[in-house]
Amino acid sequence: MGKKSKKNRQNQNRPDVGLHASRLGIDLGGTKILAGVVDDQGRILGSAKRKTRAERGVDEVIARIVKTAQDAVTDAGLDMSAVKAIGIGAPGVADYRTGVIEFAPNLNNWVNVALGPRLEQALGVPVIVENDVNAGTYGEATVGAAAGYRSVVGIFPGTGIGGGIILDGRLLRGAHNAAGEIGHMVVLIDGPRCGCGRRGCIEALASRTAIERDILGELRGGRKSLISELIDPDNPQITSGTLATALAERDPLVTDVIERAAYHLGVFTGSLINGLDPECVVYGGGLIEACGSVMLPIIRETTYRYLIRPIEPERLPILEAALGDNAVLLGAAMLAAVEAEPA
Amino acid sequence: MGKKSKKNRQNQNRPDVGLHASRLGIDLGGTKILAGVVDDQGRILGSAKRKTRAERGVDEVIARIVKTAQDAVTDAGLDMSAVKAIGIGAPGVADYRTGVIEFAPNLNNWVNVALGPRLEQALGVPVIVENDVNAGTYGEATVGAAAGYRSVVGIFPGTGIGGGIILDGRLLRGAHNAAGEIGHMVVLIDGPRCGCGRRGCIEALASRTAIERDILGELRGGRKSLISELIDPDNPQITSGTLATALAERDPLVTDVIERAAYHLGVFTGSLINGLDPECVVYGGGLIEACGSVMLPIIRETTYRYLIRPIEPERLPILEAALGDNAVLLGAAMLAAVEAEPA
Repeated sequence: MGKKSKKNRQNQNRPDVGLHASRLGIDLGGTKILAGVVDDQGRILGSAKRKTRAERGVDEVIARIVKTAQDAVTDAGLDMSAVKAIGIGAPGVADYRTGVIEFAPNLNNWVNVALGPRLEQALGVPVIVENDVNAGTYGEATVGAAAGYRSVVGIFPGTGIGGGIILDGRLLRGAHNAAGEIGHMVVLIDGPRCGCGRRGCIEALASRTAIERDILGELRGGRKSLISELIDPDNPQITSGTLATALAERDPLVTDVIERAAYHLGVFTGSLINGLDPECVVYGGGLIEACGSVMLPIIRETTYRYLIRPIEPERLPILEAALGDNAVLLGAAMLAAVEAEPA
Repeated sequence: MGKKSKKNRQNQNRPDVGLHASRLGIDLGGTKILAGVVDDQGRILGSAKRKTRAERGVDEVIARIVKTAQDAVTDAGLDMSAVKAIGIGAPGVADYRTGVIEFAPNLNNWVNVALGPRLEQALGVPVIVENDVNAGTYGEATVGAAAGYRSVVGIFPGTGIGGGIILDGRLLRGAHNAAGEIGHMVVLIDGPRCGCGRRGCIEALASRTAIERDILGELRGGRKSLISELIDPDNPQITSGTLATALAERDPLVTDVIERAAYHLGVFTGSLINGLDPECVVYGGGLIEACGSVMLPIIRETTYRYLIRPIEPERLPILEAALGDNAVLLGAAMLAAVEAEPA
């Protein structure tokens, strides 16, 4: 409550915040739903959060999204009639034309769920549906680290590696709603096995999962590392936070593996730029949030070395994402502003 | 002469060929200049050809382009005043906004040559300047193998590997006129040295040059091959035609190396599709023209296997280029129709 009245006071001090231009952005994740009312400048006027409970099925999840949306609007001191459009980012293949989630393994395997139409019916506002990483990239490219750039590649290394591509201000959806799966671009033919079943994808070389595999392999081979004390030997998972701790202690094994992952990401980034020639690249995701201070300098140095046509770093910056956990909802809201409202 | 009057007769039988809609397409190559008058449907109404003589310098080359352009217009039975726009594809970095060739190593190292403005002044017609492989891809995507598709990736393995990317009907130029350099996308980190000085580019694995390197290496290592009889031991160059001959004879070494190159191209193509999700892919270039019957089936099979989101082959065809040596001039002319003429 205190939070809300503080927000309202802030709004009174910002006469340029037109309430008529509010959109609602929603980040539908596998574990939680985040919703935020967003103004033209990408400021969050009110927000709400709820667990997803994907295991309870489609109807329950949609009901929870509707409630969270309503809570966010209330938190902003508004009524749903003040919301011009809703954008929702979801973890899967989204058909932005129809609003259907074609496939979402992380939502307890949704298949062909008409999420957009169902939310429109429940909330009475136009809805656009987008892949979550695409939405996050769009957020960074409009109101985040890459605001002002019109051609942006977003690379988000975490458990996997997600990405998004924006060219001339437009999000690249692809001909089959499948563009931006940059984690499964191959950089080492016949290299390590990827979670997708193929080999040598950048995700199999530089995601947190790949780093965990390499560190655990070295430990099994007898190499010593501080990491042995930081993990549970019976359930040896290495979070990004654990990696950051080991890096801060200058643990040689973790440093080696992380630096090699950063080198791979740099070659990959140079390679992508050779194909697409964007105005800038944005790096985000859990691994970069935790270990960016070590990884980003290596990524940058390697990227520029791999450009076939030399471009000065200041003309092609490699930026760190700025929106954190709000990237998806902000991007979804900004996308809704462009695509869901009648011109 | 006989050729010309035959063309004119053809035109009389095609009342839909509006002479008012003619453009001139020019393919400026390192060794020869090709020019053609092109109608709306991509038919060539007249053409001409001349050696480039790049060693004689910029002024001489531009004079030769102007003459070749005039010859093509004459061959079509037209006057230059009937040409609405000119497109020229050049081997280098072209700034399509200014018409300047920023850098063209294959034209005796042109640097910042104002090719577009100089041709406009000499010929009195609006001119657009484009990278040759981009123009060729645009040709295939508008009046060639991929006509009717709006998002097309073109891959052209020859001495190097060139490419072009068309998304939603628009040629991707990139933020620094450097897009489409797909030959220098890395598929094997720390792999074989590329002509560009880096390692593991697809060009270092699957161009004719890479294939030649691998075959000669195996011969030096003592492996027997028919190819030894087909090349000059003092100047051991292996043309695409020689490769085709050895393939036709089922030479085991050449077959092995070519099949491996095709596998690499397939992984690369799947990888590119995972990022960009085009409607189709077009394969052309000297190596494909000579060895496509062996390479394309392997490329196709491998590509579809590497898609992270399965798409039926008929919804994402991998086509063979159809325009041959006319691709660049046709693409340049079609591009001029869209970009050089006032709307």
